[in-house]
Amino acid sequence: MADKANIGILGASGYTGSELLRLLLRHPRVDIALLTADRRAGQAMRDVFPQFSPYALPRLVAIDAIDWPSAGLDLVFCALPHGTTQAVIATLLETAPNTKVVDLSADFRLSDPEAYARWYGHAHQAEALQREAVYGLVEVYRDEIKGARLVANPGCYTSCAQLPLIPLIRAGAIDTDEIVIDAKSGMTGAGRAAKEAMLFSEVSEGFNAYGVGHHRHMAELDQEFSKAAGRTVVPTFTPHLVPMNRGILSTIYVRGTAGKGPEQLHAILAEAYRDEPFVHVLPFGEMPHTRHVRGSNMTFIGVAKDRRPGRAIVGAALDNLVKGASGQAVQNMNLMLGFPETLAIDQVALFP
Amino acid sequence: MADKANIGILGASGYTGSELLRLLLRHPRVDIALLTADRRAGQAMRDVFPQFSPYALPRLVAIDAIDWPSAGLDLVFCALPHGTTQAVIATLLETAPNTKVVDLSADFRLSDPEAYARWYGHAHQAEALQREAVYGLVEVYRDEIKGARLVANPGCYTSCAQLPLIPLIRAGAIDTDEIVIDAKSGMTGAGRAAKEAMLFSEVSEGFNAYGVGHHRHMAELDQEFSKAAGRTVVPTFTPHLVPMNRGILSTIYVRGTAGKGPEQLHAILAEAYRDEPFVHVLPFGEMPHTRHVRGSNMTFIGVAKDRRPGRAIVGAALDNLVKGASGQAVQNMNLMLGFPETLAIDQVALFP
Amino acid sequence: MADKANIGILGASGYTGSELLRLLLRHPRVDIALLTADRRAGQAMRDVFPQFSPYALPRLVAIDAIDWPSAGLDLVFCALPHGTTQAVIATLLETAPNTKVVDLSADFRLSDPEAYARWYGHAHQAEALQREAVYGLVEVYRDEIKGARLVANPGCYTSCAQLPLIPLIRAGAIDTDEIVIDAKSGMTGAGRAAKEAMLFSEVSEGFNAYGVGHHRHMAELDQEFSKAAGRTVVPTFTPHLVPMNRGILSTIYVRGTAGKGPEQLHAILAEAYRDEPFVHVLPFGEMPHTRHVRGSNMTFIGVAKDRRPGRAIVGAALDNLVKGASGQAVQNMNLMLGFPETLAIDQVALFP
Amino acid sequence: MADKANIGILGASGYTGSELLRLLLRHPRVDIALLTADRRAGQAMRDVFPQFSPYALPRLVAIDAIDWPSAGLDLVFCALPHGTTQAVIATLLETAPNTKVVDLSADFRLSDPEAYARWYGHAHQAEALQREAVYGLVEVYRDEIKGARLVANPGCYTSCAQLPLIPLIRAGAIDTDEIVIDAKSGMTGAGRAAKEAMLFSEVSEGFNAYGVGHHRHMAELDQEFSKAAGRTVVPTFTPHLVPMNRGILSTIYVRGTAGKGPEQLHAILAEAYRDEPFVHVLPFGEMPHTRHVRGSNMTFIGVAKDRRPGRAIVGAALDNLVKGASGQAVQNMNLMLGFPETLAIDQVALFP
Repeated sequence: MADKANIGILGASGYTGSELLRLLLRHPRVDIALLTADRRAGQAMRDVFPQFSPYALPRLVAIDAIDWPSAGLDLVFCALPHGTTQAVIATLLETAPNTKVVDLSADFRLSDPEAYARWYGHAHQAEALQREAVYGLVEVYRDEIKGARLVANPGCYTSCAQLPLIPLIRAGAIDTDEIVIDAKSGMTGAGRAAKEAMLFSEVSEGFNAYGVGHHRHMAELDQEFSKAAGRTVVPTFTPHLVPMNRGILSTIYVRGTAGKGPEQLHAILAEAYRDEPFVHVLPFGEMPHTRHVRGSNMTFIGVAKDRRPGRAIVGAALDNLVKGASGQAVQNMNLMLGFPETLAIDQVALFP
Repeated sequence: MADKANIGILGASGYTGSELLRLLLRHPRVDIALLTADRRAGQAMRDVFPQFSPYALPRLVAIDAIDWPSAGLDLVFCALPHGTTQAVIATLLETAPNTKVVDLSADFRLSDPEAYARWYGHAHQAEALQREAVYGLVEVYRDEIKGARLVANPGCYTSCAQLPLIPLIRAGAIDTDEIVIDAKSGMTGAGRAAKEAMLFSEVSEGFNAYGVGHHRHMAELDQEFSKAAGRTVVPTFTPHLVPMNRGILSTIYVRGTAGKGPEQLHAILAEAYRDEPFVHVLPFGEMPHTRHVRGSNMTFIGVAKDRRPGRAIVGAALDNLVKGASGQAVQNMNLMLGFPETLAIDQVALFP
Repeated sequence: MADKANIGILGASGYTGSELLRLLLRHPRVDIALLTADRRAGQAMRDVFPQFSPYALPRLVAIDAIDWPSAGLDLVFCALPHGTTQAVIATLLETAPNTKVVDLSADFRLSDPEAYARWYGHAHQAEALQREAVYGLVEVYRDEIKGARLVANPGCYTSCAQLPLIPLIRAGAIDTDEIVIDAKSGMTGAGRAAKEAMLFSEVSEGFNAYGVGHHRHMAELDQEFSKAAGRTVVPTFTPHLVPMNRGILSTIYVRGTAGKGPEQLHAILAEAYRDEPFVHVLPFGEMPHTRHVRGSNMTFIGVAKDRRPGRAIVGAALDNLVKGASGQAVQNMNLMLGFPETLAIDQVALFP
Repeated sequence: MADKANIGILGASGYTGSELLRLLLRHPRVDIALLTADRRAGQAMRDVFPQFSPYALPRLVAIDAIDWPSAGLDLVFCALPHGTTQAVIATLLETAPNTKVVDLSADFRLSDPEAYARWYGHAHQAEALQREAVYGLVEVYRDEIKGARLVANPGCYTSCAQLPLIPLIRAGAIDTDEIVIDAKSGMTGAGRAAKEAMLFSEVSEGFNAYGVGHHRHMAELDQEFSKAAGRTVVPTFTPHLVPMNRGILSTIYVRGTAGKGPEQLHAILAEAYRDEPFVHVLPFGEMPHTRHVRGSNMTFIGVAKDRRPGRAIVGAALDNLVKGASGQAVQNMNLMLGFPETLAIDQVALFP
């Protein structure tokens, strides 16, 4: 690899695609060499996202038109819909095996083919790659990611639940049969597909839960929590939609195991993240706001006392498009390509 | 009382005051005889709330300027801040004992003087009235309200938790040691006082929990849940702020007692509210949206299955200014004055 | 007609359709006998708009399935898309000539077949009805509406420009060559069709002009302003989208003719609307807010002095779904069926 | 000056102050040496703006506690309220004459003492500095700014009107007696002071004009337009509030002078800004959206044809806190300290 890496973004017409571009346009070690968007092929990026109007960028192409070996890409971000992704990546890695891939879809997050088939209703089409893929939550799998060729970028909801819970589960500090995660997401989490339920007038001035009892992000939580606990963990998880663009807040209800009160849980988290650049634990009793991480790669975590003895309320906030998707993906890229981990993703939050 | 009742609103410059006026201006059996707002005394209602510009209304006066006996009021709505209320109502009922009162503050909601002192930090100043006051959740206390002189209108958060939970607690259908209420409110619930944290730019495009572990509405929940259960009940309750004007959504996590699965819980609620004009239970598995009750006196309730066996997720949505405050207050007035219960509060929700 | 009129709503799955239903459910003189929605035929209204869940309503049917004569409808509201409307209404009035129609589309607003063809790109398919139709701006055409069989309900933008300008034009008080209308609309004005540009995340936290120089509502303005002036009037008109659900604000820049300063323009408007129930002229210098008319059938008008001598700034605000569409349509119905004009549309604005 | 400049921010508890900090924390050539906030003195920046919680920053101090000479500051940003600013800066520059100042208030924007007195109601307290100050619109006064000690950062509304209009006025391409500027701003433009009218519930879901005919930014427009024209120019200017945090959109109505149609006006602007890093002229007929410049220092300009012959509609969009305030201020600092002009302010817009 030369001084600068050649980067491709597959699926540049969606929100995670444009967010990757926002970050990478200010990354000093990458060149944007390829942008795809099948339905918008032939158009300029500014036709799809006018905020890029002032920048010189390659024209959008269709994936089928790409010859991977001659594309000369060092790393590809794959921001395609679930399902179509696995075939694309299989082809890419077969024909250009030295290219690295950060996949932002859910296709490679579950390592167990059976779990995948159960949650997605069909067999995985690239099981060898499914086994090869490294789960890309940097704070948990940093070392594995550095050597990986294919990284499965975590889901936004699950990142916002794993970061506050994994250290507590690993420490055996909470009852893993009693985890309730009440999660709230901004609307960009629902993507850019034109659906009636996502129209401004349908969303504004309202609030609701959805996918109650059966949201697919649960599979990812089960896998990672169970791995951290060394036993099967099945949390309750309820997602909600907030009339805002960006941000996820998790309010998590836990019971400490013997001797672990809220203060101890807080201490465990503060210690776990003391040196992490993108996870910040607030003073005990303070709870995070999504607005204070907007546009940044930061996760804020807070712990407060419940009035029921032995119970704690843990809060976590991140920007679903940054630490919950594209910022996390660039963090993974930085590790995979040997760049400083925080390069181009160290912006301060945009508030208000 | 003549064909029309003479009505006063104390505290007409706040949101519950203006919402009372919105409803009462279309009530065929009342005359607005008195509007108070101490800091705006002498002004017209239109100076405080321009939407009333087209209507003929009495000028705002200060409470101290009122001679209660000569005011000739049949019923007074008291929408004053907590704390100042009890002295005002004590004076009013002493000097004009035939006037009826619906109080929208928290001052008369707790029937136990000790609980009041513990939560509010000072002794109650009108303990006899505290004993006399009837708790004004119509669906629970309809008969008592009909004969009451002083009704304590319930809090918005608590209404949105009591309506879905009281029938389940009464039926012994849920484990009362395991209730988690994750509540989300629109910003009008925070009132109209000018505070930095309530500015548009501080609130928009963000989401957060607040008052974690110590919100005063808990006292009201404890009282009513314990009364319904016949034993002490202490739920977990976490309020959040949603960037919207109106609406409360409660997402409630419960465990059914032996033999009571989510479907049974749904059946209990559907039966309990079958004939209620202002509580609507959605088909099993559907969850309520705040937007579908906006501006109406309706409460929507939904029940869904959690994937953890034996557990259910119960949702409730209401408009905090209507069924959570002023609509509930007019419903109480209708009962106290012998009017049809739904008069002037049967508007259909305003969506979008 | 019996004591109650039988009413049909064609196109009940859009926002103007649901808004008609919201108003008519509280109208004491109508029965909802028919609701159509071609793509949702067979479904219940609650499946399309959950806020109607508590109400008993006829199931949605397809228009082609209706036999107009046997439907026995006294009046039909037509809330169908432009273009498809004229054929539907022609069939309806041919087979059930005693039914009255209020059409909320643009199909019958232009009385000149040539103007229609020029703006819409095809010949009108029901020219006789086009000639018969009465333009339904009540404050201008009240008498004609009372006897009409077919009323063309005005556009939302145009209502918000005509109400403040028609009296000034009629009085010869402003230079009709120098009218600039800068209009801003909430998102419900764009309808309920699922389009990327209307998604919450595309709209929230942003503001823009659109249709600059060629919005079709201009044709309606030209027609009505020219009629009022007795000469051709071609105003400048620029629409904008506001990240809110409801409301239109027009900011209008005018030059008074000799001797007519801003105060005189204000006096003309105040006099013109002194007895109108749904147009309210604010004191001189006060400008209207859309929030103060939200959910109501009211229009607020204000006039202020520009600092350039002889020039005035005129503001008007209305709720695009009420006075700008469905409230105006019910007002027309009330006149056409001989009901009191304000019946069921006299709600007070919902603020906040 | 060493490799890094020592920077102070006066008034760090307001939105322009925090926005300066957001940008400067990623500026490679500055150290944040001083932060003031009189009412919050002694607190940490994180207590005032929690998004800065992860960063090491000096504690807030009161201005009176500063000894300017020993503070050793190379440049001070002054983000204090109008009026108090001039005395603070006079003291600063008297006691530490080598410090440079970028003032974000209105205090030094008007160069004419009489104009200042007329618009602000009192004599200027530092007339010598008023004469010395350079007006800080970089695209117009770049050379003067490079050598300036005191720069008066332009107002947000005025920047968004000057950038599209100054080249047209200078070229004599528009009739300067016929300029109408209809401006719309997000709520951060109103600052962070706790006022009832700025509460979320007062602002959300509504739209209105304000300050009609007498907004103080007019004085700045008059001065700069008249300077550009070589004769007195008095435009019509009407500001509005949009329920969003950031962004200003100007819709400007102009008449071309003989031979200058909309296309010619577009060509003049495109040529004027061809090499400017922060002003981007869209293709003819496209109009700008505020959302596409959010969080960036970019201004987007568009020109479209009005249907009235000879007339054009010019649109401009910028982020009021960046190019309209703090980004412009950093751009000024970069020039004053000899840094590359785009350093730390070249972020891509945050959309959605």
